[in-house]
Amino acid sequence: RVRRAVREAPAALPPLAAVLEALAAELADVEERHEIWSLRATVLQRSPRLLVRGLGAHMADELELAEAIAERIGAEARDPDGLPALELYPRLLAGVAGTAVRVAVEHWCSKPPGTAVFADVFREVFSQLAAGLPGPPAPDPAGT
Amino acid sequence: RVRRAVREAPAALPPLAAVLEALAAELADVEERHEIWSLRATVLQRSPRLLVRGLGAHMADELELAEAIAERIGAEARDPDGLPALELYPRLLAGVAGTAVRVAVEHWCSKPPGTAVFADVFREVFSQLAAGLPGPPAPDPAGT
Repeated sequence: RVRRAVREAPAALPPLAAVLEALAAELADVEERHEIWSLRATVLQRSPRLLVRGLGAHMADELELAEAIAERIGAEARDPDGLPALELYPRLLAGVAGTAVRVAVEHWCSKPPGTAVFADVFREVFSQLAAGLPGPPAPDPAGT
Repeated sequence: RVRRAVREAPAALPPLAAVLEALAAELADVEERHEIWSLRATVLQRSPRLLVRGLGAHMADELELAEAIAERIGAEARDPDGLPALELYPRLLAGVAGTAVRVAVEHWCSKPPGTAVFADVFREVFSQLAAGLPGPPAPDPAGT
């Protein structure tokens, strides 16, 4: 579903925004399942075998997302020009998007239920990415 | 070493640049060890037990890097204001930086030895991050 959404997103959207929208749609029901996600994280941490299987699935997802991104930006898997940027970028965006989702879920799960809205955390993470990770406003602009 | 470098980087550097410089110094010798890194990737893929141990080490590294970033930007682990951005940002930057290194190494290892310079791939990845992942120049600006 995510891959199809990435491919079919409006042409005007930059690649990062297309991935954001596709993932947001997929994660829309996370909000109601704080307990399940926290439990899932705990189980995965305790069971190496499940963790490896989950990791394998994650790597496969990442590769498929990278392929969808490459298709979207017109950089086919077999790059006709041999430019490294065209292969590197889809991989990077897919990897970073996966990490962004993971960090958002971890951060949200670390809060007591009801204190943080997952959609807010998720949007904050992607706006940091789109802005080039400038960081939060400095707390002491006069310091140092 | 990476954490100390992040803490001690010049105050003028934005957080992402501080992490880039710290990692670049740490990865300076990767260039000469294409075979070892490729072999390492293959071994990890084949041995779930090693993979889990490596993953545990990676998660610990990521958390420690996040703490160093939080110190650097003045967002201590115990956030006095309770602002989510201050905790979220160090985690996000640490996670994304780790993913960026992984993608750079994978991309570089997937090329025959001698055809790609690791330092170039690494810099390309971080300049994409700093620019907000705009993607490579569109190959067909007239299309669609």
